[in-house]
Amino acid sequence: MNPSPEFGSVVIASNRGPVSFTREQDGAITASRGSGGVVTALTGALQVGGTWIAAAMSDADREMTELADGRIPADDGAAYSLRYLNVSPEDFDGYYNYVSNGILWFAHHYLWDNVHTPVWDAGTYEAWERYERVNLAFAEALAQEAERLPQPTAFLVQDYHLSLVPKMLREMKPDALISHFSHTPIAGPTYARAMPTQMRRQLLAGMLGADVLGFHSEAWAENFLMSARYLPGARVELGRYRAHVEGHEVLARVHPLSVDAAAIKETAALPEVAAMRKEFEEWRGDARLILRVDRFELTKNILRGFTAYETFLKRYPEWKGKVKFLALLSPSRTELPEYRTYAEECLAEAARVNEKLGTADWEPITVRVKDDYQAAVAAYALYDVLMVNPVIDGLNLVSMEGPIANRRHGVLLLSRNAGAYFRLGRYALGINPHDVEEQAEMIQVALALPEEQKILRAKGLSRLIRANPPSRWVAHQLRDLDKVRIRRAWFRA
Amino acid sequence: MNPSPEFGSVVIASNRGPVSFTREQDGAITASRGSGGVVTALTGALQVGGTWIAAAMSDADREMTELADGRIPADDGAAYSLRYLNVSPEDFDGYYNYVSNGILWFAHHYLWDNVHTPVWDAGTYEAWERYERVNLAFAEALAQEAERLPQPTAFLVQDYHLSLVPKMLREMKPDALISHFSHTPIAGPTYARAMPTQMRRQLLAGMLGADVLGFHSEAWAENFLMSARYLPGARVELGRYRAHVEGHEVLARVHPLSVDAAAIKETAALPEVAAMRKEFEEWRGDARLILRVDRFELTKNILRGFTAYETFLKRYPEWKGKVKFLALLSPSRTELPEYRTYAEECLAEAARVNEKLGTADWEPITVRVKDDYQAAVAAYALYDVLMVNPVIDGLNLVSMEGPIANRRHGVLLLSRNAGAYFRLGRYALGINPHDVEEQAEMIQVALALPEEQKILRAKGLSRLIRANPPSRWVAHQLRDLDKVRIRRAWFRA
Repeated sequence: MNPSPEFGSVVIASNRGPVSFTREQDGAITASRGSGGVVTALTGALQVGGTWIAAAMSDADREMTELADGRIPADDGAAYSLRYLNVSPEDFDGYYNYVSNGILWFAHHYLWDNVHTPVWDAGTYEAWERYERVNLAFAEALAQEAERLPQPTAFLVQDYHLSLVPKMLREMKPDALISHFSHTPIAGPTYARAMPTQMRRQLLAGMLGADVLGFHSEAWAENFLMSARYLPGARVELGRYRAHVEGHEVLARVHPLSVDAAAIKETAALPEVAAMRKEFEEWRGDARLILRVDRFELTKNILRGFTAYETFLKRYPEWKGKVKFLALLSPSRTELPEYRTYAEECLAEAARVNEKLGTADWEPITVRVKDDYQAAVAAYALYDVLMVNPVIDGLNLVSMEGPIANRRHGVLLLSRNAGAYFRLGRYALGINPHDVEEQAEMIQVALALPEEQKILRAKGLSRLIRANPPSRWVAHQLRDLDKVRIRRAWFRA
Repeated sequence: MNPSPEFGSVVIASNRGPVSFTREQDGAITASRGSGGVVTALTGALQVGGTWIAAAMSDADREMTELADGRIPADDGAAYSLRYLNVSPEDFDGYYNYVSNGILWFAHHYLWDNVHTPVWDAGTYEAWERYERVNLAFAEALAQEAERLPQPTAFLVQDYHLSLVPKMLREMKPDALISHFSHTPIAGPTYARAMPTQMRRQLLAGMLGADVLGFHSEAWAENFLMSARYLPGARVELGRYRAHVEGHEVLARVHPLSVDAAAIKETAALPEVAAMRKEFEEWRGDARLILRVDRFELTKNILRGFTAYETFLKRYPEWKGKVKFLALLSPSRTELPEYRTYAEECLAEAARVNEKLGTADWEPITVRVKDDYQAAVAAYALYDVLMVNPVIDGLNLVSMEGPIANRRHGVLLLSRNAGAYFRLGRYALGINPHDVEEQAEMIQVALALPEEQKILRAKGLSRLIRANPPSRWVAHQLRDLDKVRIRRAWFRA
């Protein structure tokens, strides 16, 4: 199926490209293709022909880009190419580490206490100029691609790294059909004011340069629209999910992504995954298994998860020795000091609980630190309870991968602040991520749930997740853009 | 002028009463009347007759209440009485320190980082029960008062301590005319979800039991309404500032309070204030004066204010020795450890700047720690720049007291996140409280402002503040309630 029949070409812009290059010890450059629903979905949209523009993230990416003279042909034989932008290491650091991950991620995930953080100084303004410069490089590359590709072109701009691109591209090509999708939550209007004032306004105006803005949940779309009301010159119709800026109309749309169930099943069927599953099974023995799979990401709420498990064990001591908590954790953003500290705190909290409640033949919490997707898929099969308790999350893919790969009608404990909760909530057990008391009680409820209840919920989750494959996610976005195209042609006829 | 001509009586409920009692060393109990616009305004509304119900805050309050058999006559000869509720010390601690100041204040001022704080446990639920119990005691007292007072009665419930009172009172007296006024900011819907789920819902439902909800700014009203949309059974019309819950209609209204200009002028004219002013004047000498007046309150942003001043001095070294920063600071909520730490940090930051930039005959920052309103009024007269940079503030009264008492056409640096900014912003220099860079630059701009600009702004501020005396604030609330009364009578006729 061609997901974009109305478009002559598709041009995608995202910080990270679908393929990353590595220089091996023998000097050769090897390519590895990213997995996950977003890559699959966006690559699908590119089958009509087009370009995926991304930032060169590594030295090998940069070398490869230079070798290929800027445009790397798709490795799957389709009619699209990759274009990796070489920005200076200083610009990349300002754009990526400082602004994208240090400011925007923190703002949209409510990670400041306001009393001490954040503090903006001259360095902030310098980094912001770098963010602007990199966004401009993206916008220019997008405009160039459109010049050489069959029309009409659908521009699909991804995420908070590229918030300024829609407006910049609109100024270069006023008739461009542009969508922007936010994969994070979106800070509400009051919290967003902690960002430097001019930066906040430029970010809003930048996104409002698009025709369609996509979000994972209604809550994020509404936070964006409520913020946009404070932008001078903008007018927002909240009830219609629509904004107007200087005669330009912008639609807000909610299209939650899902996972690629078939791909997960394929991974689960791999012999090495089966072997790991067997290992986990032996280790688990007769115990019930609580599982969590997360990066050491500040938002993932690993600390309160361990504390809640401790509270559960103290209140229901009959479960001691009869349950095991497996935490598969992987490093994240180790270039930011907050993240390094957080990883240490998580390990210390697990050690504290083990020290306090463990016995000679029972370790309450087992932590494995490794970025290992196959191990996660192996463990998913075995959980009785999957704990997904982020303090806030744009969507959360673990809550979708788990129910697809699980084979025990395991129960999903899901934070009410995850974008996924808006879709899956009715078949999960909802938890307040800040509430250790509630999480402890819900572990008990999950373990005690009657089998028919568990089956009902597991089937419901699986059905909802499968009903919304990643290809639909991107098809929705293209359809939205196509409606804009038709309306625009009609009004100009 | 009778501010409440349509009502037979007015009943006010607030945590703190207008008079507080102290047992002196000689054993006598003395009364001291609170100052400030709220007390003046609400006392004015009581002239028609009625009761002010508050919590006994001290042992002397409790004794006085018992001595007076629960109802203390007004000391100003008017036809109202005070009624102080004796709640157990444990209930008071849970209601006041834990829930009101430890949870609600933190939520509405965005003081959590989410990664580590807040954490809810069994203690939270216990404290919440105490909050409920105290709110119920208030609601019962309000209902009792209405029984004995001339009808119709206007119920004016104040602030976040008493969020549950409107609904509780509505259940006891379905036809009661109830308003609730929030003196704080209001957290947006996403941030508010950090509160325990059931608590958040009860707080929303509690406030929605009122007929009219008052706020200091549109931003806070809209945050409340956006949160209310998530309450099961509630329907919100954002554009009309209106909510419906189970057939009951609730209006949101914005009535910013102001200060009592005449009272400030009276204080300024006191001989002891004149003497202090003279002292400050001599200390200041030929230097220009930057002033701040604040409690050691987490939201007041004292730390970044000092850092911004340091940045200013480094960038514009010609001002060294020619400017003095006077910080009049007073203790606040010392029962909460965060507040004690914050006070220490503020003093350390001032000492650091003085150590780094001070000379033998010039101390860059002078800090005085004392709760001394008269000293503040004396210093207000003399500032060239008044720094009011809270990270967030429901309204902010310093930004209104200062311009009334100032005699030098001093410039107001005002945080764009203070409720007062929505009204005074056009005559202030707006600052982003998190942005040290901008604040440093704005100090320079303020000091360099041409005299005619300063006069224009100072006059504008004075005019806006005087145009909105506290009596108007309360009259608006009574008028809103009266409209509800008329409409209700009409629909039932």
